[in-house]
Amino acid sequence: MLPADDGLSMSDYVTPLDDMRFVLENVVDLAGLARLPAFDHLELDTIWFALEEHARFIEQEVAPLNRSGDVQHSRWDSGNVTTPDGFPEAYQKFVAAGWGGVPFPAEHGGGGFPWLVGIALQETLTAANVSFSMCPLLTHGAIDMLLHHGSEEQRERYLPKMVTGEWTGTMNLTEPQAGSDVGALSTRAVPADDGSWRISGQKIFITFGEHDLADNIIHLVLARVPDAPPGTRGISCFIVPKHILDAAGGLGERNRVECLSIEHKLGINASPTCVMAYDDAVGHLVGEANQGMRYMFTMMNTARLSVGVQGLGLGERAYQRATAHACERRQGRAPGARAGEQSPIVELPDVRRMLLTMRACNEALRCLVYLNAECLDLAVHDPAEAVRRARAELADLLTPIAKAWGTDLGVEVTSLGIQVLGGAGYIEETGVAQHFRDARIGPIYEGTNGIQAVDLVGRKLPMRAGAVVADLLARIAATAADARGAGAALAPIGDALAEAHSALAEATDWLLANGSSDPYAVLAGATPYLRMCGIVTGGWLLARSAVAAQRCLDGDLPGNQLLEQKMVTARFYCDQLLPQAAGLRAAVTAGPAELVAASF
Amino acid sequence: MLPADDGLSMSDYVTPLDDMRFVLENVVDLAGLARLPAFDHLELDTIWFALEEHARFIEQEVAPLNRSGDVQHSRWDSGNVTTPDGFPEAYQKFVAAGWGGVPFPAEHGGGGFPWLVGIALQETLTAANVSFSMCPLLTHGAIDMLLHHGSEEQRERYLPKMVTGEWTGTMNLTEPQAGSDVGALSTRAVPADDGSWRISGQKIFITFGEHDLADNIIHLVLARVPDAPPGTRGISCFIVPKHILDAAGGLGERNRVECLSIEHKLGINASPTCVMAYDDAVGHLVGEANQGMRYMFTMMNTARLSVGVQGLGLGERAYQRATAHACERRQGRAPGARAGEQSPIVELPDVRRMLLTMRACNEALRCLVYLNAECLDLAVHDPAEAVRRARAELADLLTPIAKAWGTDLGVEVTSLGIQVLGGAGYIEETGVAQHFRDARIGPIYEGTNGIQAVDLVGRKLPMRAGAVVADLLARIAATAADARGAGAALAPIGDALAEAHSALAEATDWLLANGSSDPYAVLAGATPYLRMCGIVTGGWLLARSAVAAQRCLDGDLPGNQLLEQKMVTARFYCDQLLPQAAGLRAAVTAGPAELVAASF
Repeated sequence: MLPADDGLSMSDYVTPLDDMRFVLENVVDLAGLARLPAFDHLELDTIWFALEEHARFIEQEVAPLNRSGDVQHSRWDSGNVTTPDGFPEAYQKFVAAGWGGVPFPAEHGGGGFPWLVGIALQETLTAANVSFSMCPLLTHGAIDMLLHHGSEEQRERYLPKMVTGEWTGTMNLTEPQAGSDVGALSTRAVPADDGSWRISGQKIFITFGEHDLADNIIHLVLARVPDAPPGTRGISCFIVPKHILDAAGGLGERNRVECLSIEHKLGINASPTCVMAYDDAVGHLVGEANQGMRYMFTMMNTARLSVGVQGLGLGERAYQRATAHACERRQGRAPGARAGEQSPIVELPDVRRMLLTMRACNEALRCLVYLNAECLDLAVHDPAEAVRRARAELADLLTPIAKAWGTDLGVEVTSLGIQVLGGAGYIEETGVAQHFRDARIGPIYEGTNGIQAVDLVGRKLPMRAGAVVADLLARIAATAADARGAGAALAPIGDALAEAHSALAEATDWLLANGSSDPYAVLAGATPYLRMCGIVTGGWLLARSAVAAQRCLDGDLPGNQLLEQKMVTARFYCDQLLPQAAGLRAAVTAGPAELVAASF
Repeated sequence: MLPADDGLSMSDYVTPLDDMRFVLENVVDLAGLARLPAFDHLELDTIWFALEEHARFIEQEVAPLNRSGDVQHSRWDSGNVTTPDGFPEAYQKFVAAGWGGVPFPAEHGGGGFPWLVGIALQETLTAANVSFSMCPLLTHGAIDMLLHHGSEEQRERYLPKMVTGEWTGTMNLTEPQAGSDVGALSTRAVPADDGSWRISGQKIFITFGEHDLADNIIHLVLARVPDAPPGTRGISCFIVPKHILDAAGGLGERNRVECLSIEHKLGINASPTCVMAYDDAVGHLVGEANQGMRYMFTMMNTARLSVGVQGLGLGERAYQRATAHACERRQGRAPGARAGEQSPIVELPDVRRMLLTMRACNEALRCLVYLNAECLDLAVHDPAEAVRRARAELADLLTPIAKAWGTDLGVEVTSLGIQVLGGAGYIEETGVAQHFRDARIGPIYEGTNGIQAVDLVGRKLPMRAGAVVADLLARIAATAADARGAGAALAPIGDALAEAHSALAEATDWLLANGSSDPYAVLAGATPYLRMCGIVTGGWLLARSAVAAQRCLDGDLPGNQLLEQKMVTARFYCDQLLPQAAGLRAAVTAGPAELVAASF
């Protein structure tokens, strides 16, 4: 038990509903999405109401368990995992309220909301408690897999309780010798007489592979069937429930799957990271044999986007905490302050720079991940086939950027959060160090950020021979032109964006020109190129925010503070952070000579 | 007790003697320093021998305690602090070997070595075990203070045992309301009848304020005498020994100073961070009353440089670990590798980029901190007064850069170290997460990096009306010209350095031009300016390394691998990292408008 009076249960997170709504209305078009036939059943007001209710729920029930969960960790004992105090109760309320099912089809018990709304909820659940959020997140992945590739019978047996969250899901890919290199996995599946399979092998890094939050855990396990081709072409996907279902779909006997241990990690301590042993466990093939890798790809976009969202959620929480501290803590004397008086440090220029940097990065990233989510919705639900295809392509292009740039920003912004608190930030009791530790996993899992960069230059740039990235660049150029022509407040933003666009266009052209003849050169520049893409798309979307904000300020919302601060944030980002993009061009186009010549 | 077979005692650090020697011979001039009259008693070979012996000592005795110390922490009980298993024994050996006294005058029992050599030893002691290194580091600070400002009697009573390390020292500045704002401290000192003082107050964040490594702890405590002026002009410095000395200088009664608790921190867990209570404790005034702040400034350069060195030490250790992992871990297929075989990840271009980035940052930082240390030596020991003054000025200019850029790189490089290990890096058992956690304190203590930036633009740039920074810029330009004229291998380095020099010169001119009329504008750009300075001075010194390496390659060391890799590292840094400097210019010269307009 934790002592009651140590401040561990203090929640300091307030859902940034105003900024979320601004982005949903002005950078993406939630209203337009809600008008699509697929969302006929939804009123826009229902969506706003859901966002507000969810905010109330997570602030009261989930956020207060963040630090206590970090202190207590999930604990392993003889194959069982106990989550921290309060987690089971909060999870039951989460299930009861139906939050886990919001973005899934109504026919399986979901809310039938757009994925965009699901992502907005994920942002705030992550911010409240990233360890807690991992359980629904992995369940989402498993639901996604079964929705797309499960048989009708499998969907009927498993999905209803997974969509409510009564049962949770996991994804079992990694093995000791098969991390980034999924194709090297060796878990085996052999057919049984009754049409099911028997799965044997050991998996590591399985998030919420075992826990006490739900009655059953539906493991999706990648394994090899007899005579499977080597590498990624020989991977199959199996449903392996912790408790085998009886004929009526209720809980039957315990399957032969066991959690051998959990990891002691830098962060996300309340989220159990499990070593799982399958020993002739009963499994059911999803779809066809040897198609597992292809199936994984269909859910990769959503999973990667969700991890990018974690960078946003943690960055936002760190920003709120740093701002509160800076307004309260008095130390030193700000320019112009009276002698002999300590100023709140928020008045010190360098502290303001840190806070504004945090805010600008968070807001740029919010725009990017919401846009990415909107593309995922339109790729499925837009009535026009051409729009669906274009949005699917843009989602494909943006996803590695959202994942890698988003998680890198998560680390950088939470690090600034520590810095604003100074010595107090390094002390665990203040809680900001936890955000930094929690954020550090983001660049690693769901495909390392290096793999995202390789995906971006190797698979995404070549889409339609470069035409997809050219479309994005054209949209960026158009926004720059809009801003340049829209008056004195916006022109500098347009100028800065135009310059950054040129740098990105040059780097892109170089990669496209060299891609086929010298793959090594392109791989060598992948990481700085991805960062350039992140910085420039962030600037583009903040410029769009500024154009929209200015329109409202010139219209019926003069003097509105949120909108005026949007202008400040966009100008700061475009003036001061966006020029860093050009500083990366040389690294993108340097070629491989030094990397090859280096010996280690 | 820790289990014996968990790998915790594995040392994976090898002192980079070859690169250290390269820098000591080619970037700074250790031989020239050793020829100065002040070091008449020293042979150069003695110095090399000391570096090798120290390497053997720390690799065998100190490095193996790094991870076990992190796991075990220092522990507090009823006012006593117990350091982790093995620390007391290792510290006794450290004392017996005399390593603590290396850079102090022989007349007080020291080795009489240049500070430059002391810094080289600090680099490696930090790399081996930063928590352990904090105890001698703080003792160094206290010795420095007494050397410069203690009375002859005080020096005789305290210094001999502090120089050997038999007694350790602490610096007591911070109080809850007085962190960065030292002038706000309120600890009181009242005179006693016998000429001593009685000190009362509470201090926080006191490194090794209490421990079991030594018989006595000599606290240097900042406090206010009666009727002291407010702020920093009313601060006095006192010696407050844990055990009061008897007349013969032996240990007398216990003083009224107590450790109330120690902090639970993100890192440096084996280094106890103490809350200290002084309750009418016996103290002795150092120098004159109300001069304490001025005294602190005399030791600030060395202390800040030492913290910058921590970034280097941790970065180097992380690099070695990441390189070893990348050479061993097989995963995926490198360009050109045979199908069906896993390549060591060191062959993947993105992994090579990470490793080369780590190495380039470490080597640039090693050059910078060694140069800074050499300046400190020449500022004292050069026979020519003009040289002494010029080196003192350059040290003043470089110190905030070495501290802030060095510690920022420490965080960034150790973060890359985690990334190279991937999922394994996030697991505490591999030890690389510890380097990242340990590194994160660097940007905070000994003056936050924001304060370093303010110091750079507010105090250091204006030195001699900008002539000191102009001298540095001229030296950078000269190296660029040298490289440009030195053949095809060096010309690109020279070109890149010339371009970065222009950007830095422009930013510098802007700050100097606006400094007097608009201090806020200068403070607003301080942090990006400091980073620019770090990146460009790092590039300058690697360019000098490359010029020296090429000269040796062209001379009597053709094909030497260390030298060839020096060329690769310098080219990589100058081609790919140095251009980031220009990307920061806009942030330096943006002025304060957005920072002022932002509301938080």
